[in-house]
Amino acid sequence: MRRVFRDLGVREVVELDIRERQEAREEAKIRLLDNVAGVFFSGGDQRRMTSQLGDTPIYGRFQEIYDEGGVICGTSAGASVMSDVMLISGDSKESYRLGDLQMGPGFGLIRGVIIDQHFAERGRIGRLLGAVAQNPRYIGLGIDENTAVVVEGGMHLRVIGEGAVYVVDGESVTCSNIAEGRQHAALSIHDVRLQVLSEGDSYDLAMRLPMSSEQGRESRKDAADK
Amino acid sequence: MRRVFRDLGVREVVELDIRERQEAREEAKIRLLDNVAGVFFSGGDQRRMTSQLGDTPIYGRFQEIYDEGGVICGTSAGASVMSDVMLISGDSKESYRLGDLQMGPGFGLIRGVIIDQHFAERGRIGRLLGAVAQNPRYIGLGIDENTAVVVEGGMHLRVIGEGAVYVVDGESVTCSNIAEGRQHAALSIHDVRLQVLSEGDSYDLAMRLPMSSEQGRESRKDAADK
Repeated sequence: MRRVFRDLGVREVVELDIRERQEAREEAKIRLLDNVAGVFFSGGDQRRMTSQLGDTPIYGRFQEIYDEGGVICGTSAGASVMSDVMLISGDSKESYRLGDLQMGPGFGLIRGVIIDQHFAERGRIGRLLGAVAQNPRYIGLGIDENTAVVVEGGMHLRVIGEGAVYVVDGESVTCSNIAEGRQHAALSIHDVRLQVLSEGDSYDLAMRLPMSSEQGRESRKDAADK
Repeated sequence: MRRVFRDLGVREVVELDIRERQEAREEAKIRLLDNVAGVFFSGGDQRRMTSQLGDTPIYGRFQEIYDEGGVICGTSAGASVMSDVMLISGDSKESYRLGDLQMGPGFGLIRGVIIDQHFAERGRIGRLLGAVAQNPRYIGLGIDENTAVVVEGGMHLRVIGEGAVYVVDGESVTCSNIAEGRQHAALSIHDVRLQVLSEGDSYDLAMRLPMSSEQGRESRKDAADK
């Protein structure tokens, strides 16, 4: 892992290994975060991450680093924890069935989104639709492997990498059976707006609007012309 | 297979086994279709079905049975062949990459749709989006296992079974990179309208409008009240 970051040009890499909540209060561990410009969360179990780190001094430091313009990033479970509501578990490779999903409170660094990962590879569109159906105020973000979203200012995201990012937007939804409460009935949800974004595409979370890499190039050109 | 149909109340079941195109011209085989009220296509290889049956006397009989109000149905590859353009192959469990899809001419019993099957189970939303991106005139229909669409009059479909049916509607698409021709680049497609339909939901292919089972019950009640 260290080598990956060194190859990417990161000069100094320190490993912060926290297994229990008590460790997230140790002075020596907290000190490791002095002068840190970025934090990367590896994969694992998102509920383990939030339950062991949530509201500890270490978590406070993450929030400070973020607020001061540092980069907080993560992969797999480490991506899922970034949002205020996070997806914990639910069946992949199935259409969503009422009741088959666990969600919980994440780190809250990005608001208004629910993030899923290994997206196309594990056939997770069903469960992300289920998550969005529960409250279309949240935008569903499904991120493929070897693919990332770069979120700036908490509101503007840009896609990098070789796969796609799916944005499930429930604002336009006209009808769903999610509140009927028939356990295990297949989800019905009408008029979802779906964005499939690839490298260079971006998306405005506030406006719920996609922009293609070409439009981006054009507007950058416009800006340069001015 | 015979027993399944007997249990469903079908009084007489004959098996029509055609392996080569020549057999689809044999008088004895054609005769098997006298007085037949319905035809069921098993799974297999959709291109094998169309290449061996297309435009043969046997295929002519299928068309007659259909035109006279008979039921033509199929599962797996036998479902894919029903449309005028059919999906032949493409990667599952991946986001669609430009160029990674084979389509071809199907039996043409339903117009304006492209059908995919084993849909959630094999993670096929990516390839169906790729198919629709190529020409949004076609509506993508993704059908889960143990789930079916009943199409009446070629225009109105109704969902039965335990899973979901996904309708990928590209009419509203504002932008895609499908024509850029960068082989294997991940697809970008913006503003797709997605319907997730379950048992009892229906969809009007001409109007591109979903109707929930509840709305259906209401309008049936309205009709009964009149």
